Amino acid sequence: MYRLPRGTSDIFGANIEKWHWMEEKVREITRTFNYREMRTPIFEHSELFARSVGETTDIVEKEMYTFTDRGKRSLSLRPEGTAGIVRSYVEHKLYADPQPTKLYYLGPMFRYENPQAGRTRQFHQFGAEAFGSLDPALDAEVISLGMSFFASLGLQNVVVQINSVGDAESRPRYRQRLIDYFTPYEQQLSAIDRSRLHRNPLRILDSKDPATRELLTEVPSILNSLSKEAAEHFELLQQYLSDLSIQYVVDPLLVRGLDYYTLTAFEFYTEIEGAQAGTIGGGGRYNQLVGEIGGPDMPGIGFALGLERVMLACEKQSCGPTDHAGIDCYLITFDHQTKKAAVSLLQRLRQAGLTAEVDYLGRKMKAQLKAADRLQAKFALIIGEEELAAEKVAVKNLQDGQQIMIGLEQVIHYVKEQRSVI
Amino acid sequence: MYRLPRGTSDIFGANIEKWHWMEEKVREITRTFNYREMRTPIFEHSELFARSVGETTDIVEKEMYTFTDRGKRSLSLRPEGTAGIVRSYVEHKLYADPQPTKLYYLGPMFRYENPQAGRTRQFHQFGAEAFGSLDPALDAEVISLGMSFFASLGLQNVVVQINSVGDAESRPRYRQRLIDYFTPYEQQLSAIDRSRLHRNPLRILDSKDPATRELLTEVPSILNSLSKEAAEHFELLQQYLSDLSIQYVVDPLLVRGLDYYTLTAFEFYTEIEGAQAGTIGGGGRYNQLVGEIGGPDMPGIGFALGLERVMLACEKQSCGPTDHAGIDCYLITFDHQTKKAAVSLLQRLRQAGLTAEVDYLGRKMKAQLKAADRLQAKFALIIGEEELAAEKVAVKNLQDGQQIMIGLEQVIHYVKEQRSVI
Repeated sequence: MYRLPRGTSDIFGANIEKWHWMEEKVREITRTFNYREMRTPIFEHSELFARSVGETTDIVEKEMYTFTDRGKRSLSLRPEGTAGIVRSYVEHKLYADPQPTKLYYLGPMFRYENPQAGRTRQFHQFGAEAFGSLDPALDAEVISLGMSFFASLGLQNVVVQINSVGDAESRPRYRQRLIDYFTPYEQQLSAIDRSRLHRNPLRILDSKDPATRELLTEVPSILNSLSKEAAEHFELLQQYLSDLSIQYVVDPLLVRGLDYYTLTAFEFYTEIEGAQAGTIGGGGRYNQLVGEIGGPDMPGIGFALGLERVMLACEKQSCGPTDHAGIDCYLITFDHQTKKAAVSLLQRLRQAGLTAEVDYLGRKMKAQLKAADRLQAKFALIIGEEELAAEKVAVKNLQDGQQIMIGLEQVIHYVKEQRSVI
Repeated sequence: MYRLPRGTSDIFGANIEKWHWMEEKVREITRTFNYREMRTPIFEHSELFARSVGETTDIVEKEMYTFTDRGKRSLSLRPEGTAGIVRSYVEHKLYADPQPTKLYYLGPMFRYENPQAGRTRQFHQFGAEAFGSLDPALDAEVISLGMSFFASLGLQNVVVQINSVGDAESRPRYRQRLIDYFTPYEQQLSAIDRSRLHRNPLRILDSKDPATRELLTEVPSILNSLSKEAAEHFELLQQYLSDLSIQYVVDPLLVRGLDYYTLTAFEFYTEIEGAQAGTIGGGGRYNQLVGEIGGPDMPGIGFALGLERVMLACEKQSCGPTDHAGIDCYLITFDHQTKKAAVSLLQRLRQAGLTAEVDYLGRKMKAQLKAADRLQAKFALIIGEEELAAEKVAVKNLQDGQQIMIGLEQVIHYVKEQRSVI
């Protein structure tokens, strides 16, 4: 027996309808916001992720699927979507077009993690990236795009937490304040947090360690270390969010796992499991990233949403598509001659845009009618010897049981008309 | 500079519209034929492909992206779609549902090949698989599904070549006839064809070697070695194809590269490059495959189409989507106050399903109007100081240049109404 690789899944049946529904919402919302899709390859050169996501991040150090191809290149399955989009924006010189460039992506990502509900090794993200503008109204638009997507699904109680992680002027200042604050408590920090103290003290704010977390209640806020420009950007963002009636919470401890953020950082939260709130996505500004991977000095901002987690939230709140519609017609046949006639009619029905099916198992009429029921067919089209001789079809309405004879040439018109009545 | 991995591409701009168009056709056609989507993971356990595609095939021996994950499993990026679908059909016991099970897939596949036009290392396939019926009418349906897809794209001159590769009774008989035929010419065969002579003589029919190909003009036809059942299946298939007015050509040399086919094999051809006809997909019956990978004895039939190649054929025949529609509204602003009002209006326009955009670069009015033109906006909504005070918007129709003042609350209604007039 061959099995699914651990941490992956097959999507089919009722589940595929849920994914189609969610993806359709992505298409609708991105269209109204004027973001256009970009697709980048499933794998990239490994160095791209080391450079953009960060060499010392968990993602790059522990979670990437990295392999060497037959040409001895080191490739990695993409663990996130921003790196590929930024690489493409630079490689195709999209920065030379009038800005902003507004893009979205939708597809599988890969991280070697311990599988659990909403965390799989192949998972799927909807992400958006907007390049070429420093306007805080664009930060608000990106957050609004995410919130509008959740609203279109019918999700309630989604809250966005926001923060400013500062700019080139604010960061070193805050870094020093953190070192000053934690140094007297150095012995209380866990080993990993202690090692972060001089390397990357901002990461301590993300610590899961209880002793460290106790110290965080009194930690100085980054918002008191912001430069004038960074503070104004954050203030304007909040004004725009209020104008848009977006419910937000300022969380000065929000720093996110990736190194590339500047100014705005945010996360979307809602109820997922039990009563516990969980993150269903997040993002931020990355004003240095385009330059760092070889492009000109161009700002960017974006988010990524974990669709498996969004799906869990939808299930918890009973949001989802309406049931899969049944088929239009099931053709009932009796022998080789009636089957031949049915196969031709089948083709004409389908060409007219109707969903039509026929028996492929040589079943008796009763079993065929049962199959029609199972497929929730609206009509059974019965082609017997007599009907064939008269060039007619017996059309049975499977909801009210009524049956009438219709000419072979008129049946498509009849079904289309009656279908809209049902 | 970071570059695309060799043999991959980014899809965006006008190209993404072409892919959306093609994918929309896949959704439409599969709906009318009652095939439902199944998604399997991007990678599978490597042994699955060795077992299903065949251990000694070029695909498995030379072209797979195989790697070991951190749990020491050998995984491979899927080089084709059937293996995963069959694995899923068996693993989830879909054979226990009423048959047939009719599925389709759409997504990326991976083969390490020398990149050329229409052959990339990450490529995309639309495939269909139908399980659980031996009815030749189902073979005809699967072929008809492919042909209907091509027709929906507007592709002309697509021909399907068909053959029967026989069943368990016919194959050994034909094998022996091939050995008898080639043995006197053994020294004329190329080294590789000679090595196939006793291992897998059917493969010689696929030979690219000129000397071998000369011998093929007189080679015995498999159609003369078919069992009674196989011959009848092939005869009925042809009758159904004729009933469906599908243009087909019988090619007794068509054996396809994969080992798992039984009875029906087929390939779709059309003009791709120059005047040369190229294959754009193919498939066949695989009545043993489900059993071979651990399921019960259940027949199957399917096809896979190479969408990059289909796209080339579309380009050659100038088939494609209508141009990308422009946006509905571009909002023109002048300062922070008018921008704040615009951002709120923007949200309401988008919530009403309109595509709306605003300036994020602090440009002057003239440059904003130019941006509106570039985005092919139907209307410019101008929000100046005066308009703001009067709670109105100046709506400029960008096609005829007419401009009128509309109340802030009426503007959505107005734009929706006028848009349908344009």
